[in-house]
Amino acid sequence: MDDRELVKMIGGIIGTDTVEDDCAKIPFGDDYIILSTDMLHETTDFPTGMTDWQIGWMSAAVTISDIASDGAVPLGLLLAAGLDRPERLKGIMQGAKACCDEYGASLIGGDVDAHSELTIVTTGIGRVEKENYTGRKGALPGDLVCIVGDPGYAQAALDGDARYRDYLLIPKPFVYEGRELSKAGVSSMMDVSDGLALSLYDLADLNGVGFEIDSGKLPKTLPQDYVLYGGGDFGLLFTCEESILRSLEVGATVIGRVISDAGVFVDGKTVERRGYVHKWD
Amino acid sequence: MDDRELVKMIGGIIGTDTVEDDCAKIPFGDDYIILSTDMLHETTDFPTGMTDWQIGWMSAAVTISDIASDGAVPLGLLLAAGLDRPERLKGIMQGAKACCDEYGASLIGGDVDAHSELTIVTTGIGRVEKENYTGRKGALPGDLVCIVGDPGYAQAALDGDARYRDYLLIPKPFVYEGRELSKAGVSSMMDVSDGLALSLYDLADLNGVGFEIDSGKLPKTLPQDYVLYGGGDFGLLFTCEESILRSLEVGATVIGRVISDAGVFVDGKTVERRGYVHKWD
Repeated sequence: MDDRELVKMIGGIIGTDTVEDDCAKIPFGDDYIILSTDMLHETTDFPTGMTDWQIGWMSAAVTISDIASDGAVPLGLLLAAGLDRPERLKGIMQGAKACCDEYGASLIGGDVDAHSELTIVTTGIGRVEKENYTGRKGALPGDLVCIVGDPGYAQAALDGDARYRDYLLIPKPFVYEGRELSKAGVSSMMDVSDGLALSLYDLADLNGVGFEIDSGKLPKTLPQDYVLYGGGDFGLLFTCEESILRSLEVGATVIGRVISDAGVFVDGKTVERRGYVHKWD
Repeated sequence: MDDRELVKMIGGIIGTDTVEDDCAKIPFGDDYIILSTDMLHETTDFPTGMTDWQIGWMSAAVTISDIASDGAVPLGLLLAAGLDRPERLKGIMQGAKACCDEYGASLIGGDVDAHSELTIVTTGIGRVEKENYTGRKGALPGDLVCIVGDPGYAQAALDGDARYRDYLLIPKPFVYEGRELSKAGVSSMMDVSDGLALSLYDLADLNGVGFEIDSGKLPKTLPQDYVLYGGGDFGLLFTCEESILRSLEVGATVIGRVISDAGVFVDGKTVERRGYVHKWD
């Protein structure tokens, strides 16, 4: 069983709509309040050798990225830490605060607890005008498929390429870009933290469409396997009409087009449905 | 080192005001958005024999209680679960949803992860008009000290008294009461989930006052040791002017009075500063 099957089951309890996005949204006057929570553990999420400061930064960045992918402005972050050693908290909080400061959010509270394995749960709150909100639903056949950021570097670093360590250890969520894309009216958006291929499948399935990706348009500084299947990057994947792309003031790469047939294809060949998932044996 | 020392250290990083309450508050027009997060683990927080449904209920109730103690209306809850066995999630989500339904909140999302020890982090969001907000600060010498609910039953149940098992396993946050007290204008409020004595100390320290408690006014169905030092109850502790108490339509028990001298006393004798804390050896 993996986490995607579990999320489906949860949809049966709390509503299918509720589990379609990494963020929850609550109507609040002319705005939506956007909320997202992420659980990270030492053994599965924090590469060996990370400092506590980097762990704090990454924990904040994961959640801020989710909020950014809805086009929202991050307002605040809560951090709950299950600590194996209490002295780690200082570095973790300093790292999380640095990330919050960088993206205009406040570190507004949390909880602490003793735990055999370091476990951090960050919950973020953001705000977006209703007319500027972008969810995962909305991609239409004929739309362009685009990315912001270069997927694969975090995975390359995890596999030992020291040139890309900062992509892995101090990831930068695309907050400004997510907001601009959303205001420009892109049709659907999500971050690619579980890997580009898996994100493409998630978005395709949810929208009842498919994606035809052109390998010639994928970034070429890394082997294609990293670009498609590497996890841990916070790039944004979005779809939009061609006219919208021309008006964008954000650096984005067109990688393909939305098609009406189900599936994800690169140069006409089906892409493997794999990436970053949590599994239970 | 215990969690209270850690929270002090965090105050040095993210601001002392920020760590004074279990909840964070964000101004939003005429309202405050109230946020709270709580981390619970199998070994330290869930008594042996609890069902997954009860674990879900309790996890939701802990956070809803924090929101209620600010006088806020709970709106939504996120639940992040680190699961030792994925099949536990269904019962946990059903229990959490039942608790949310009971108190008018929506279970709006979450995260799942594999973990060696069951770990649940709930984050709640609530809303309160600025003029109806009650925090922990505001107690003044001369105010009455009051409680809603009967502290000690959860601890008695934990120690084996089967009559009180529901107090421990399916705790009921005082959402309606917190809201009514807050609207009536009580001067400070918090829940007593770490035990009455420790909560009295927390409130006294924060307000630069002391409390003189009258043992004759404490509930008598349990030994005083349970009433003062037992944890796991979600009763509310609050202070208010006498005139406000007379107007209340909520069942509350006056247990003493706010004094200007520091300390917490029962019949003039200093109370031990102990209750529920997380410790690292």
